[in-house]
Amino acid sequence: MSVPAVDLTVCPDRLESDLGALAQLVETDHPGWTRTALGPVDREARELVRRWMADVGLETSVDGAGNLFGRLRGTGSGGHSLMVGSHTDSVIGGGRFDGIVGVVGALEAVRVLRESGRQLEHDLVVVDFFNEEPNEFGLSCVGSRAMVGELTGDHLGLRDDQGRTLADALEGVGIDPAGALGAGYDFSGVDTFLELHIEQGPYLEAQGSQVGLVESITGISRFRALFTGQADHAGTAPMDRRRDAGCAAAGTVLAVERIAAEGDHTKGTSGQVTFTPAAVNVVTAHAEFRGEFRGPEGEWLRHAQERLTAAAGEEGHRRGVDVEVDWLPLQEPAPMSDPVLATLTEVVDGLGLTSSRLFSGAEHDAAVLARRVPTGMLFVPSRDGRSHCPEEWTDLADVTAGVTALTQALIALDRRGKP
Amino acid sequence: MSVPAVDLTVCPDRLESDLGALAQLVETDHPGWTRTALGPVDREARELVRRWMADVGLETSVDGAGNLFGRLRGTGSGGHSLMVGSHTDSVIGGGRFDGIVGVVGALEAVRVLRESGRQLEHDLVVVDFFNEEPNEFGLSCVGSRAMVGELTGDHLGLRDDQGRTLADALEGVGIDPAGALGAGYDFSGVDTFLELHIEQGPYLEAQGSQVGLVESITGISRFRALFTGQADHAGTAPMDRRRDAGCAAAGTVLAVERIAAEGDHTKGTSGQVTFTPAAVNVVTAHAEFRGEFRGPEGEWLRHAQERLTAAAGEEGHRRGVDVEVDWLPLQEPAPMSDPVLATLTEVVDGLGLTSSRLFSGAEHDAAVLARRVPTGMLFVPSRDGRSHCPEEWTDLADVTAGVTALTQALIALDRRGKP
Repeated sequence: MSVPAVDLTVCPDRLESDLGALAQLVETDHPGWTRTALGPVDREARELVRRWMADVGLETSVDGAGNLFGRLRGTGSGGHSLMVGSHTDSVIGGGRFDGIVGVVGALEAVRVLRESGRQLEHDLVVVDFFNEEPNEFGLSCVGSRAMVGELTGDHLGLRDDQGRTLADALEGVGIDPAGALGAGYDFSGVDTFLELHIEQGPYLEAQGSQVGLVESITGISRFRALFTGQADHAGTAPMDRRRDAGCAAAGTVLAVERIAAEGDHTKGTSGQVTFTPAAVNVVTAHAEFRGEFRGPEGEWLRHAQERLTAAAGEEGHRRGVDVEVDWLPLQEPAPMSDPVLATLTEVVDGLGLTSSRLFSGAEHDAAVLARRVPTGMLFVPSRDGRSHCPEEWTDLADVTAGVTALTQALIALDRRGKP
Repeated sequence: MSVPAVDLTVCPDRLESDLGALAQLVETDHPGWTRTALGPVDREARELVRRWMADVGLETSVDGAGNLFGRLRGTGSGGHSLMVGSHTDSVIGGGRFDGIVGVVGALEAVRVLRESGRQLEHDLVVVDFFNEEPNEFGLSCVGSRAMVGELTGDHLGLRDDQGRTLADALEGVGIDPAGALGAGYDFSGVDTFLELHIEQGPYLEAQGSQVGLVESITGISRFRALFTGQADHAGTAPMDRRRDAGCAAAGTVLAVERIAAEGDHTKGTSGQVTFTPAAVNVVTAHAEFRGEFRGPEGEWLRHAQERLTAAAGEEGHRRGVDVEVDWLPLQEPAPMSDPVLATLTEVVDGLGLTSSRLFSGAEHDAAVLARRVPTGMLFVPSRDGRSHCPEEWTDLADVTAGVTALTQALIALDRRGKP
């Protein structure tokens, strides 16, 4: 079944202009398009988005966690709303589309709706979430966590490499930490949350699809692995008597790769590797790295945890190296709402767009919101699947198709009410 | 055949006192017994050794490269000499015996010879070589290299992490770089060089031997390996499309271990590993590490180079990662002089000491001197084979036995002349 499209025209020039304006507001001491949420430029960009919201007739507000809202009053009296949005912060050395497409696209949807003279029954709430990207304290989705009441004092106490706390960093960008903890949003009237985003992977391009219909958002399981061996003279310690922590760590890095490669849509990545002492003529006494698994199934993630812990233990045991693998709390995969996904599918089919269902390997604010609200997500293609790098690119025609689908979906969801 | 020992008595108390005095002169901002040649304390320690040399009746001098000499005139008129010594600098976090035993032992040999009333025909030249341990510029055996004319302008231009040159660092400890380049020693009259040193490995202890008779000193082949892949989003880049430079590096670290484990008395070690960017949620774009092989055979080292280069290439190829392995000039293994080794063997047997022939996996000034002078080396045991760490230990009885063998060997070599 497909939904007949309402006659509306999304304007590519306006999308291009807004994307271009945000691309000017970047930290110039980094490559690519860098606008970190706790950095010096993000606040200016958010003020620009607030002015845009006001310009298209939205009532703007900012909550205690820095989330920016723009509300278009609906005709209904029930206090129900549809929420739509994404984020405008970016990673260091990132691109011009990740997150930004979803905010600029939501504003264009408002413009198109107003130009059409059509009024929604629901209030429409556009959100620019604060600090979606992982910050230097290792925390992502700061704003959306605060909205669902999952930002904690422990989070605020996280420290960066310089020993500064997240609380300090928030104050540095004008956010009162106590206010951030109290920024829970009242979701009782929110019928649906929608997020438009770039895919950040190669699947849609490979399938030749204009739009991606997200079925679920990845679960993530992160760990820190510590290896303790013994420093020895690299010339005199026999190979069979060494306790080389570096070799045990290297074997475990390969185990992460091997375990992830055996799963379906699963990923495994290692980074932040250190060998101590940092000398070629001393056997490595201590090694450490961080790693993560991602996948669409919580069960697989738990299985991968078991296998990796066992593999690390074996790499250590064989070399007389003590191994400790500390797992952070597992982030469960977030399935999208079936009724919302059904509506999105009907809308996309009604527009005659080519589409694919897919799984998101990247984290999104939508995964956080999905714990409280029926949530749906639309993807547009990423050229060569590249993201979090200056090469990140989505053609304007694809952005326009995505925004068209988003706008039509809001109309369809408005008609249907709470799924 | 054994050489009947001359009646001489080495004094353990004097050895203990001298070892203890040098153990006081350390850099206290590091663990263990740290006295780096380019650091603030080594100069004071060398001045103490110079006074000890003068106290036992040696004519002292310092060459342009900071090497300290003490000469005991012999009765001969031919200008022939025997050279004996080691070094008193140590690695960061090192121990109290590495090098020091050979200098303190040579001075005790002079004392014992003088107390016995015996005069050698040869001049006896005691040396405290400058900067034997690898310094922060990656160079070892600075003083002995200068003596054999192998210190070069390229060496002086080496830079540390702060960008300072070795030339600057030498000036900082009172050594004129031009003088260091011109410090070639006239070896024409030197019949033999002997070095007493701790084993720094577990072999003598395992064999129950009091003394080690070194057959050859290790060759070393060092490399730097660079891996260039592609940064990608850790959640969206499929495992089979990644170009993960970190995994290729980890596989190569394991290849170093595997290749070395298959040889005979061969070693392989990796260190100074970096993965960039240092983030767990980005696929590693660049990785780098340094590695080395050591072994008694130059041919095996060249074979290991080929195998490692091939293995690194394969680890990269499989993942679409570009690999570059840069090999530094190979240091050939240094065989000790057969006639000197024969004399040492006879002396040790004559003293009734238990001994083993062995290969030195560690670098020594003796390997540098061996390129110009018939050279021999005696080892004493290291407890648990530990060295370059605070746990480094050799029992006083073992040091005493080693110094006794050294003294008797000087007498035997004096009798025999140039081997």
